[in-house]
Amino acid sequence: MEFTARNPATKEVLAPVYQDAGDAAIDAAAWAAHASAGEFAGATPQKRAAFLDAVADELVALGSRLIERAQQETGLPQARLEGERVRTVGQLRLFATVAREGSWVDARIDTALPDRSPLPRPDLRRMLRPLGPVAVFGASNFPLAFSVAGGDTASALAAGNPVIVKAHPAHPGTSDLAASAIVAAVERSGLPAGVFSMVHGISPEVSLALVRHPAVAAVGFTGSQRAGRALFDAAAARPRPIPVFAEMSSVNPVFILPSALCERAGAIAEGLVASCALGVGQLCTKPGLAMGIASREWDGFCDAVAAKAGAVARGVMLHAGIADAFAKSVANLRDVEWLARDGACVARVGAGEFSARPELAHEIFGPFVLLVTAPDEAALRRLAGGLEGQLTATLHGTDEDLARAADIVELLTTKVGRLVCNGFPTGVEVAPAMQHGGPYPATTDTRFTSVGTAAIFRFARPVCYQNFPEPHLPDALRNANPLGLLRLVNGEPTRAPIVPPGG
Amino acid sequence: MEFTARNPATKEVLAPVYQDAGDAAIDAAAWAAHASAGEFAGATPQKRAAFLDAVADELVALGSRLIERAQQETGLPQARLEGERVRTVGQLRLFATVAREGSWVDARIDTALPDRSPLPRPDLRRMLRPLGPVAVFGASNFPLAFSVAGGDTASALAAGNPVIVKAHPAHPGTSDLAASAIVAAVERSGLPAGVFSMVHGISPEVSLALVRHPAVAAVGFTGSQRAGRALFDAAAARPRPIPVFAEMSSVNPVFILPSALCERAGAIAEGLVASCALGVGQLCTKPGLAMGIASREWDGFCDAVAAKAGAVARGVMLHAGIADAFAKSVANLRDVEWLARDGACVARVGAGEFSARPELAHEIFGPFVLLVTAPDEAALRRLAGGLEGQLTATLHGTDEDLARAADIVELLTTKVGRLVCNGFPTGVEVAPAMQHGGPYPATTDTRFTSVGTAAIFRFARPVCYQNFPEPHLPDALRNANPLGLLRLVNGEPTRAPIVPPGG
Repeated sequence: MEFTARNPATKEVLAPVYQDAGDAAIDAAAWAAHASAGEFAGATPQKRAAFLDAVADELVALGSRLIERAQQETGLPQARLEGERVRTVGQLRLFATVAREGSWVDARIDTALPDRSPLPRPDLRRMLRPLGPVAVFGASNFPLAFSVAGGDTASALAAGNPVIVKAHPAHPGTSDLAASAIVAAVERSGLPAGVFSMVHGISPEVSLALVRHPAVAAVGFTGSQRAGRALFDAAAARPRPIPVFAEMSSVNPVFILPSALCERAGAIAEGLVASCALGVGQLCTKPGLAMGIASREWDGFCDAVAAKAGAVARGVMLHAGIADAFAKSVANLRDVEWLARDGACVARVGAGEFSARPELAHEIFGPFVLLVTAPDEAALRRLAGGLEGQLTATLHGTDEDLARAADIVELLTTKVGRLVCNGFPTGVEVAPAMQHGGPYPATTDTRFTSVGTAAIFRFARPVCYQNFPEPHLPDALRNANPLGLLRLVNGEPTRAPIVPPGG
Repeated sequence: MEFTARNPATKEVLAPVYQDAGDAAIDAAAWAAHASAGEFAGATPQKRAAFLDAVADELVALGSRLIERAQQETGLPQARLEGERVRTVGQLRLFATVAREGSWVDARIDTALPDRSPLPRPDLRRMLRPLGPVAVFGASNFPLAFSVAGGDTASALAAGNPVIVKAHPAHPGTSDLAASAIVAAVERSGLPAGVFSMVHGISPEVSLALVRHPAVAAVGFTGSQRAGRALFDAAAARPRPIPVFAEMSSVNPVFILPSALCERAGAIAEGLVASCALGVGQLCTKPGLAMGIASREWDGFCDAVAAKAGAVARGVMLHAGIADAFAKSVANLRDVEWLARDGACVARVGAGEFSARPELAHEIFGPFVLLVTAPDEAALRRLAGGLEGQLTATLHGTDEDLARAADIVELLTTKVGRLVCNGFPTGVEVAPAMQHGGPYPATTDTRFTSVGTAAIFRFARPVCYQNFPEPHLPDALRNANPLGLLRLVNGEPTRAPIVPPGG
């Protein structure tokens, strides 16, 4: 199938015409990745880190060309895209740091106990190794940071896996530019070409063919629940199933507790609308649901949210598909009390109604928030208990509120990847302690994060070497600890070398 | 459906009669687990550790009753079962240690950077939390260590998850005894009853109902590829998919390199047959495949293996199902050169034949090893490259052999969870550095181990607390570090408390 990008602001069709990758192209990319996997897995930490830094450098070197094309294809403002490039480049450099430091391989060494009774203990040395070729599916809403050279690609490469990107059809030109940066970095770094490749496609068949390819070992995806689940199902149905890390859908509920409402309803309303409208509501952590207990303050809060939302200047949405889906979702939302339908959209329902109509808990991608009025604290608790898996939940509360709501906090920890207190969920920090994930349907694998340094663990698996002679061990596991890693030696974390008995 | 255990040595039917658990019983167990999950997740490390120690104590207190019943149901020798109980008890105490020490929660703290430009960094604190109720399916070949109170149960409980065991129908009485020990420990520890329950069943429907139950959050399984895949498929097809850790099938190939063969063919042959015949070949790490390069030494080695295998006294197999399947598999294996068919069974084929007939690479559960003769080193490398995922692979080689075979070692690291050098794969040490896992079909999730302290990570997921006031944080994440955990604070591992600015 042929397709083109289109400027969402002007509706202008953007050259060139793109085509679905054929089976031969997918096959070639996947087998090239497979063929390069061993050499890339064996690259030194320094080499892998230098490569990631080179990708960052090449992205920067693209200069305004990248920003201009991304602006044309996504309608996102220049400043936002420049900020997103800073984030993307920073992410690549952060993973370079992680790769260079090297301790992420979680080296664990249990030295031999030859005299143990009744049986001696062998020498055991375990470390993480790359999984193999990773297929990455970028998101339309972050054409840089969650796309071709985004977090999935950076973390998969940092772990030593070749990457095959399926470019998002909404920004194919931006994708080509980012891919050219990675290809240039591959060449500069003297790595085999198969370490990175990209295919285009708008038909689901292209994505499914990639996920089903026998050389593909794992999948990273950010996008809709329907698409993510389709990839997950295809991966699970393979003769040899592979892991899928799909970050999909979340309404990011916000709980506004009574004392906080009394103290600062206006500020919370302002922050909520700003978070909801950020990026025209097209963020995976957009708060789409806010709940409070019926009271005069809650009514005032709802009015304030409505007023602020109505005053929001609605930006251009990413592409016609998203804009149409948003308009349709809002139009189809019946039997709710509409508080604002221009700017950002705000509707309100009672807790009973909300619980009785599961569709009200579904994500509406765009600047929309549903306010849910609970009659009392017990109802608020039931609302928390009835939630599906989420990327985030947020609580606004005073110390007194939080103490009273300890059981709601406990409930929410079972539902989300990240709990925000007295803030807003948008803005996902790239840091060691970040958890960007959550129980299904927020993601297909709640045990991992797609943002932050821990994202690297998605794409690695442990291998244990038993009784291997020193010269045949990987550097990470040698007695001398030549890489200077933090290792777990006989159960104790240390960077010290191991002195063999009599050594 | 009704069923009974049967003494595999005497064919005697063992009372009582068991019945498939009905939907109501499964439902009750799963919802009781769900109801207890919050309280159990919130138990202090000390309480959880004391509970695991209590399970160990209660298992010991069962005394000879447990061993006698297990002997009747499995035909395993008393000494082996006593050793297995030592392992099982040791495993429980090891996980108690892990739970008590507490650092397994991988606490990561990035403190706020309020003055960072362009945006401040929030305070981020991340730790592992339990997944929720875990369904455990034990194996018939380790009625204690991989069954009701085995590694899956111990690691799931240590992580703070309630457990529902589906007892193996080959040893229901042993399962009842082990379950009674855990139930007693639950009571002694003042934990809610839902923390542990067990259901019986021989029909696949019982297992599937448990895996499909909405309250079940994860599955641990050890057994056949067919059963494991069925559970995996059922879990993946759920409206809310859940992770399945199924340890299934492995032929554990042994590569015997030329110089090692010259130096010590006799010792390797003896070790191979002993490992192959251990537990009547009914171990998941049994070497079922051994490969070498055609030579006079290789012929001599094959003859030695045949002689030693023929002299093995064949023990009683675990149950009629396994014994029949073994007899049938051996009888159906045509067009191979049989070197021994009594004691342990040994057959031989050429590398070409082996590669052309994929069924020759399938696991035969029981005392059987297939010897594969490669014409040269390149053919041996191709054999390594053609292998499916395995729990283990073993190399016998001198330093010179290993240096020449570096590419085979690299290939094997992509195929296995554990690489053994100059030893044998049976005997799976319970230690921090153990990896008992491997690419499909060895397991359904190569990123985790089912043996060793790292097994706990299967049953936990990270939660990040953003800007939470100190009093509302879990103990593991508080500034003062009251649990004394090793934490990653601003990227650096430390047990030190955090001194807040101005604090």
